[in-house]
Amino acid sequence: MRARELAESYPVVSVDTDALEAVRLMADRQLPALIVFDVNGKPRTVLPDSQALRFIIPEYLQEDPALCRVLSEEASGELFRALAGLTVGDLLRQGDSRELPIVDHDATTMEIAAVMARMRSSVVAVVDGGQFLGAITLVRLLPHVMPGGPATP
Amino acid sequence: MRARELAESYPVVSVDTDALEAVRLMADRQLPALIVFDVNGKPRTVLPDSQALRFIIPEYLQEDPALCRVLSEEASGELFRALAGLTVGDLLRQGDSRELPIVDHDATTMEIAAVMARMRSSVVAVVDGGQFLGAITLVRLLPHVMPGGPATP
Repeated sequence: MRARELAESYPVVSVDTDALEAVRLMADRQLPALIVFDVNGKPRTVLPDSQALRFIIPEYLQEDPALCRVLSEEASGELFRALAGLTVGDLLRQGDSRELPIVDHDATTMEIAAVMARMRSSVVAVVDGGQFLGAITLVRLLPHVMPGGPATP
Repeated sequence: MRARELAESYPVVSVDTDALEAVRLMADRQLPALIVFDVNGKPRTVLPDSQALRFIIPEYLQEDPALCRVLSEEASGELFRALAGLTVGDLLRQGDSRELPIVDHDATTMEIAAVMARMRSSVVAVVDGGQFLGAITLVRLLPHVMPGGPATP
């Protein structure tokens, strides 16, 4: 089984997408990660869901979560108003585009698993000559790499 | 809304659990992470699904995924035979028990989200005086931290 046979369509966002909209998409579709394209339609980064939280939680609160306890309802509302109108690109950090969990269309299941383990990603993008074919989630991959292969009911 | 109200029962494994069994549990229940208890029944680590892959993918393959392409079917079979009988504890790395995505039962939703973002974890364990109450997944939490709160149909 090769990556192209396992790749499924997967919603992508762009650096121009509204940040809150991106988080809503993730929530609604229960995505394990956001795949972010740059303005040229090439994969720029894959953000695990926990990292996409930075789009709604400011960095100083991530660094000191206990501070959240003293936030009033009103202050929480302020946080979100401050985020209104910001794009995904505005909130990406330096380094978010370094190494990407991307596999070639003919990668083997074991290779896909090794890339996920290495990059600590539950999703890999599948490309063919730079063209995005779709994505493979770990949940989809796992039965194919378990000893004995996928269950055959 | 506090952590204790959002906590749900969540399967846990122990350092004594067979490693392949732990991965099968993760696959069958589609868990975003494995919560690993030590022999005293205290949370020892929370391994994201992509990191639990190390239980089936040896480290040298994670470091050089392209090597997987030259693995024969037979060699893959060897890999799994080598893992047979190993426990989760055998395969944990040094440092796996450092900082844990754990929140107190009275943590606020914003605090839980900040802990997830900080620890890069899609799951947090909820404790009350050291006692494990259950876990909160990011998918469950997200509607409660979105601006406007959870949808009320």
